[in-house]
Amino acid sequence: MQPAEIQAKNDVRERRRLHNFSAGPAVLPEEVLLEVKEELPVYKDVGASILEISHRSHAYSEIESDARERMKRLLGLDDEWHILFLQGGASMQFYQVPLNFLRSGTSADYLITGRWASNAFEQAQMVGEARTAASSKDRNFSYIPEPSSWDLNPDAVYLHFTSNNTVAGTQFQEEPDVEMPLVCDASSDFLSRPIEVQRYGLIYAGAQKNVGPAGVTIVLIRDDFLQHRAENLPKMLDYGTHVKTLFNTPPVFAVYIVEKVLRWLENLGGLTTIQTINERKAARLYERIDRTDFYRGTVEVKDRSRMNVTYRLPSEELEKRFIDEAKSEGLLALKGHRSVGGVRASIYNACPESAVDTLISFMDDFEARNG
Amino acid sequence: MQPAEIQAKNDVRERRRLHNFSAGPAVLPEEVLLEVKEELPVYKDVGASILEISHRSHAYSEIESDARERMKRLLGLDDEWHILFLQGGASMQFYQVPLNFLRSGTSADYLITGRWASNAFEQAQMVGEARTAASSKDRNFSYIPEPSSWDLNPDAVYLHFTSNNTVAGTQFQEEPDVEMPLVCDASSDFLSRPIEVQRYGLIYAGAQKNVGPAGVTIVLIRDDFLQHRAENLPKMLDYGTHVKTLFNTPPVFAVYIVEKVLRWLENLGGLTTIQTINERKAARLYERIDRTDFYRGTVEVKDRSRMNVTYRLPSEELEKRFIDEAKSEGLLALKGHRSVGGVRASIYNACPESAVDTLISFMDDFEARNG
Repeated sequence: MQPAEIQAKNDVRERRRLHNFSAGPAVLPEEVLLEVKEELPVYKDVGASILEISHRSHAYSEIESDARERMKRLLGLDDEWHILFLQGGASMQFYQVPLNFLRSGTSADYLITGRWASNAFEQAQMVGEARTAASSKDRNFSYIPEPSSWDLNPDAVYLHFTSNNTVAGTQFQEEPDVEMPLVCDASSDFLSRPIEVQRYGLIYAGAQKNVGPAGVTIVLIRDDFLQHRAENLPKMLDYGTHVKTLFNTPPVFAVYIVEKVLRWLENLGGLTTIQTINERKAARLYERIDRTDFYRGTVEVKDRSRMNVTYRLPSEELEKRFIDEAKSEGLLALKGHRSVGGVRASIYNACPESAVDTLISFMDDFEARNG
Repeated sequence: MQPAEIQAKNDVRERRRLHNFSAGPAVLPEEVLLEVKEELPVYKDVGASILEISHRSHAYSEIESDARERMKRLLGLDDEWHILFLQGGASMQFYQVPLNFLRSGTSADYLITGRWASNAFEQAQMVGEARTAASSKDRNFSYIPEPSSWDLNPDAVYLHFTSNNTVAGTQFQEEPDVEMPLVCDASSDFLSRPIEVQRYGLIYAGAQKNVGPAGVTIVLIRDDFLQHRAENLPKMLDYGTHVKTLFNTPPVFAVYIVEKVLRWLENLGGLTTIQTINERKAARLYERIDRTDFYRGTVEVKDRSRMNVTYRLPSEELEKRFIDEAKSEGLLALKGHRSVGGVRASIYNACPESAVDTLISFMDDFEARNG
């Protein structure tokens, strides 16, 4: 080949989309990205890009209200639910939730099932009386405590739980069935399956795993739950501020992407369809892990996450080689969180089934060569 | 023309970039937008778009540290300065600043020069003792109070001011020359001119006017000022958290754009160059306003903003017609804020001089037809 041809070939290779197993920010549907590309540097007929227009413009208002309508349809929310697009991620919600709802003289219960649940609990303790209803810290968060073992306070104003634990790789198979309203950090399995919305008072999710890019936090609040919040809160941290009005500049571009992802999800068939696909992807990958003793899942089988599949290899040296070779084969971001080690394959909504198949083939091949 | 040709022509017209005078989110350099387009759906050689990669990836770390280096060079910041990319906009800073620095037994001074300065003051009052050192509320914020009239508390832990008032259209011609450290909301004139950094303890700016899209708040803090903050703060609201480590997922895409805008600004020649351009644009527009009695500036001449040029026409009816006709001529978002009325042309860094010239021609023409 001539140098120019080699360069052209390298350029194409550089621009290839690979299999992305990042735990977050994570893979988005390719058609969403192509639409974004198409809408630069001018969005529709507005004469400017989506990055340059007022959050009070007609074009943006339409996007935001469209996103809300799609969210309502997908989750089956009635008009009692407020849908907010805030900033600061789940970490900000860890503090904002108790600041609003853990009023003096009340108490809230927390299920401590991982790193993020622990952080949420710590921030609640700064505000008021937060209790541990159950914890799986004793075994490095490798399981979800049995509901029968939970020490619940019947007067708790809410029970906080983390529906999917990104680091450990566990997931509540269904939401807690308790008397008090649930508050859920759903960051890493939001919109990955249908939920029983009537059990919840508030659901929050950083968008950067299943719904969009980093930079927007989705908060759903039921109106009767909202009414119990404290008074005289700092303006930006009072959920009531954002329910009443578009108080300050929202993360316009991130909401614009969320709207496109929700559209993609609706067109695909909604939450029951994506649940089926997600279960199929996870089942196939866990089946491969369990087929031999070479790969070992790190959490209790009954609590396995359908979003973050965590496993170990016979040695750390093999794990390192696995991750490096996978990368050179175009399988990205498979390194497990440092607190668990090993491999973590995050297979959120937008992760194509073909990516899982490619990973499984690579696992077969790697075991054949190293097993 | 055949229908297909008409359609093609309409398509082109629909995709045309117009003259965008939005007060924020606001116009960005076109070359930045084209680069973003080029980098979708795959960023360089990473195999995924910038929207889909970990904030702990090498690719993102490089972008963030490059943005910091450029910011340091542009503003002449030494290593005493921390540069943070936070979320929540200036509105979140209104609370976060006093929460960190307005400790019990101390007091802070505020210059109330507009709507946003008032909001900042209100949030500070929720935290501790905040004093009004001066206010221009008596005349609808149409001027900046003379320094000689300020009632300063020599023991104030900081003096808070809003360097440019987006709504009213006033601007501090230079930063206050006082003993205490300055805390500045620079959202609407950040990086539009050189500043005397040694006067400041902290500078914050929502990016969506001069530096990037909505969704990232730039905070600069001098280390010795930071050391005076309160202890045991909520994790996300403690500046110390973000100085120490990349604590939680930052708004990756917004920081990515900021880095490109900073690069554009450096290539252009930096802050003295952009200051010259900004002064030339503003001078030309104010000269046109002052040339006849048809257009009237709304603020004191000495305090005029070089970023947001506010003016009135002889009647509200003419103002409405002006804004509508301007829009149909491709001059967008000229409507003044409802608290001032009339016309507001926001001419931030990325607003090309040709846009200002086109606006001036339109003003001439409109006056000839309606004067």
